Amino acid sequence: MTENNKKILLSGVKPTGRPHIGNYFGAMKQFVDLQDEYQGYVFIADLHSLTTTRDPKQLKQDTLDLVIDYLAIGLDPDKVIFYKQSEVLEHANLAWIFNCLTTMPYLARAHAYKAAEAKNKEANPADSGVNVGLFDYPILMAADILLYDADVVPVGADQKQHVEIARDTAEKFNYHYGETFKLPEPLIMEGVKTIVGLDGQKMSKSYNNTIPLFAEEKELKDLVMSIKTDSLGVEDPKNPEECNVFALHKLFTPADQLAEIKKRYVEGGIGYKESKDLLFESINNYLKPLREKRKEIAKDPARVIDILKKGAELARGRAQAKMADVNTKVGIDL
Amino acid sequence: MTENNKKILLSGVKPTGRPHIGNYFGAMKQFVDLQDEYQGYVFIADLHSLTTTRDPKQLKQDTLDLVIDYLAIGLDPDKVIFYKQSEVLEHANLAWIFNCLTTMPYLARAHAYKAAEAKNKEANPADSGVNVGLFDYPILMAADILLYDADVVPVGADQKQHVEIARDTAEKFNYHYGETFKLPEPLIMEGVKTIVGLDGQKMSKSYNNTIPLFAEEKELKDLVMSIKTDSLGVEDPKNPEECNVFALHKLFTPADQLAEIKKRYVEGGIGYKESKDLLFESINNYLKPLREKRKEIAKDPARVIDILKKGAELARGRAQAKMADVNTKVGIDL
Repeated sequence: MTENNKKILLSGVKPTGRPHIGNYFGAMKQFVDLQDEYQGYVFIADLHSLTTTRDPKQLKQDTLDLVIDYLAIGLDPDKVIFYKQSEVLEHANLAWIFNCLTTMPYLARAHAYKAAEAKNKEANPADSGVNVGLFDYPILMAADILLYDADVVPVGADQKQHVEIARDTAEKFNYHYGETFKLPEPLIMEGVKTIVGLDGQKMSKSYNNTIPLFAEEKELKDLVMSIKTDSLGVEDPKNPEECNVFALHKLFTPADQLAEIKKRYVEGGIGYKESKDLLFESINNYLKPLREKRKEIAKDPARVIDILKKGAELARGRAQAKMADVNTKVGIDL
Repeated sequence: MTENNKKILLSGVKPTGRPHIGNYFGAMKQFVDLQDEYQGYVFIADLHSLTTTRDPKQLKQDTLDLVIDYLAIGLDPDKVIFYKQSEVLEHANLAWIFNCLTTMPYLARAHAYKAAEAKNKEANPADSGVNVGLFDYPILMAADILLYDADVVPVGADQKQHVEIARDTAEKFNYHYGETFKLPEPLIMEGVKTIVGLDGQKMSKSYNNTIPLFAEEKELKDLVMSIKTDSLGVEDPKNPEECNVFALHKLFTPADQLAEIKKRYVEGGIGYKESKDLLFESINNYLKPLREKRKEIAKDPARVIDILKKGAELARGRAQAKMADVNTKVGIDL
């Protein structure tokens, strides 16, 4: 709990380039929706990024873009403590202490490492050739979470293991050194259906079927027009639940208009061209204010960087207090 | 090179309890002997200690004792930057960055891990059950060294691998991100013969055959009297090179007196009792000033802690400058 009596929500976000509407509805929007209920700590996981990228220019650009993206969708730095992981040196230090409490086989069982290892086509984890950062990142993640006594960590159903490892690590520390860390709970982000991409598969960069969240009108229009449909004619009755265009209407089109479109699908009388035109209008109405806010924010990168600096100061204050306790418990203070 | 144009010598020392004269001649004394020639950075490796101890009280006591020990033998905090590793948060952060450049099999080949793994009687490194800190410590050590652009790292012949791993890591980073780290050289501490223990084996805590460096007179006398000899009589000629008592005379007894004793060994006429009495005098003359200085220093632990704080401030200044460069190179600055 914080001074303001709110529970603490912690989340790290990784700079990965241009976000799409799947990212937005799947995760980004939640931070904004939850920022009044919880005291949020949201950090740019740049130390984690180093496990997978060695392109400094790209990483730097992606980091700045990511911050601007979140501010544009309404993350309020007066409510959420928003900072860069690498600016709070306590993360890596706590991870080191946790390393000394974690056995090799425990970590070798972690999902992500297993996946990376499988990619390297090796049966023996220590021979897989992946980097040590990729092996050790669940422990850095445990430190990310436990450092702030987070109550909840929003995760997709496939990321529950991260919170479990943090809980295990907290329990190990508490067992050896006495009660110190709060056990965080996963906040499973449910209720958000998979967002359908242009081709009907799950929207994902790897399928190249995304609608970028901050796409300009022209790009947006072209993408909407490229949504895959069947070849039914204008007058043919259509099943809205099987239409990729309609799936996106459900996210962006106001309820009364949506009902009207649905009726015309079922009865026949609306062609895909018209449905796409209407969808483009709906999406554009929704995204235009975000897009414009993003442009405003991007004009002043110094202010953006300043927001992160201030966030890091606040985060550091809390992290330092926690580490003072941890260092005493493990015996490295004097 | 430093502002004062001296080469940088870096070394970490691990708190391990009461030092003995084998530790002193084998390593500790070198730091004092080299403190004018080099700009020394000597740190208490408390983060490394956590890989092998979970006894906070002991670790804390050992750490304080270690600092007092070094000050007592003449390490001059006005010459050497003397600090606690855990107080310079940049060490663990640089180690994380290096983790991301290091493959699992590379680290699995490191000697110490192999030894720990063998102890755990497992063929598969990732299944050995040793902690991740023990697996990863050569990378933390590389960070310890490279953070300060150390020119030389004093090591025993059996520790050369640590410097090799630091050099490899520097080369990897320089290759990926451009020239950043100086390649350190090992400074092999030669010329110091193995110090013989009370029983003629190498002096080592694990053989329980040591003479503590700061032993009180009574303890010292008892230990010297317990040195193992053969049963030759007073008048028998003796081979000084085969005598454990004489081996210690060579370290502590002044040259002219040593020559005289040697003559009496060869010709006969000195018994082991007399040789031990003389040895006790020599050792005590040598150790008494250190012992007394230690007591003086131990009276004021606040001053000792203050020395470490000041050392940490100086070390941090250099570490921060280096990390500013590193963070820019890898792309995590903004």
